[in-house]
Amino acid sequence: MSSLVYEFPLNEKCRNYLRLNELLQQTQHCRELAAPGQATALFKALLDIMELLERCDLRSDLAKDLEQQKGRLDAWAQVPGVDAAALARLGQQLEQLVQQLPRAARLGQQLREDKLLSAVRSRFAIPGGLCPFDVPQLHYWLNQPVAQQQRDLDGWLSHLQLLQQGLALLLTLWRETGQFRDEQANAGFFQDNAEQTEMIRLRLPVDTAAYPVVSGNKYRFTIRFMPIGSTETGHIDFELANIK
Amino acid sequence: MSSLVYEFPLNEKCRNYLRLNELLQQTQHCRELAAPGQATALFKALLDIMELLERCDLRSDLAKDLEQQKGRLDAWAQVPGVDAAALARLGQQLEQLVQQLPRAARLGQQLREDKLLSAVRSRFAIPGGLCPFDVPQLHYWLNQPVAQQQRDLDGWLSHLQLLQQGLALLLTLWRETGQFRDEQANAGFFQDNAEQTEMIRLRLPVDTAAYPVVSGNKYRFTIRFMPIGSTETGHIDFELANIK
Repeated sequence: MSSLVYEFPLNEKCRNYLRLNELLQQTQHCRELAAPGQATALFKALLDIMELLERCDLRSDLAKDLEQQKGRLDAWAQVPGVDAAALARLGQQLEQLVQQLPRAARLGQQLREDKLLSAVRSRFAIPGGLCPFDVPQLHYWLNQPVAQQQRDLDGWLSHLQLLQQGLALLLTLWRETGQFRDEQANAGFFQDNAEQTEMIRLRLPVDTAAYPVVSGNKYRFTIRFMPIGSTETGHIDFELANIK
Repeated sequence: MSSLVYEFPLNEKCRNYLRLNELLQQTQHCRELAAPGQATALFKALLDIMELLERCDLRSDLAKDLEQQKGRLDAWAQVPGVDAAALARLGQQLEQLVQQLPRAARLGQQLREDKLLSAVRSRFAIPGGLCPFDVPQLHYWLNQPVAQQQRDLDGWLSHLQLLQQGLALLLTLWRETGQFRDEQANAGFFQDNAEQTEMIRLRLPVDTAAYPVVSGNKYRFTIRFMPIGSTETGHIDFELANIK
């Protein structure tokens, strides 16, 4: 039986990490502009990234969290049979990011200065506001040769590369450290202590006719399973991992 | 040399027609959810359609404009060698739409009552707000079997079918009636009388290093060609059609 993983951040920093990571992945998945709708999804992701980066400067938080992961590698090095070469490469990657992130220009700055992105941004929230008559320069751009579009996209995304590498690496390491354990929700309800947990991960069989909603803070969290359709939520078996 | 057509509405009604038509096409292009980003583009289109339909009720305007097209068919029927059977079918289509549109339920009403669309709508404007932790029911839905997703999509889009058919037919007929004529913009500028024009259409060689921006009302309109890059805009040859 295949399963479905839900992740819930328990603090504002982690919420921003997950949002940005999701949006950065979206830009990567859509950057070829190979199918209808991918331009819309790509621009939405880019504009959302710009907006998030204006509100919060993640460089130092991210560098600090990566530094902490570097510290944990030393413990791994003691484990018998560990791939020392792989561990060394990972250590170098972490070291580079920890060095580069605080020295980078404020993230997203160059995107805000781009004319096309600004034009799209000013119209994006208007319903149907990306119509050719609303943003004719976008209509022009979408009809440019693919090579030209890809050059522009490469330019925009290059400004986000460091952030993307840092977030992807941190979240991969976080996810790998969190061991799933079996839990059960009674009458669709579960609660536990958070104890410095950054986020929790839930794993459910894909055919569970309910989805989880989580509220929480740094002390504790509650999970409520919302039924799909009119069925009552009874006991629900799920797996849970705390990421610290 | 391939060319690029820009359309500019000269009144609010036509602006809504073009926006809705563009969004409805987007829903059709993305409805298979076959490529990354298409779910985002599809939901954006659906939410924008809902928003536009809340602001304006197009049923009677659209029925009136289709009725007018029906009147014009009689003139076509006099043209020697015209395909009478095709003309009759078109007449029937128009007649049906003219009858059905005013009797239809207020457009978009059923979409507003959908739980998933409401949940997505409440989060869409938040940057990164469609993350799985923000709208877990969307994460659940996106991982449902394709057949289930398509059933839901069929349901949503069925409520928009009449609008889509009416708009597509009207805009096709409008576009076919507007004959392009050669025009020239001096120093990137052109103006003309509007005289009850619904919209204007511009056709430019695709390698023209400028895009048009139009402002206008029911009396007159001006076109300004904005240069791409730093080049000055000199004389620009283009084709223009007025749609009445």
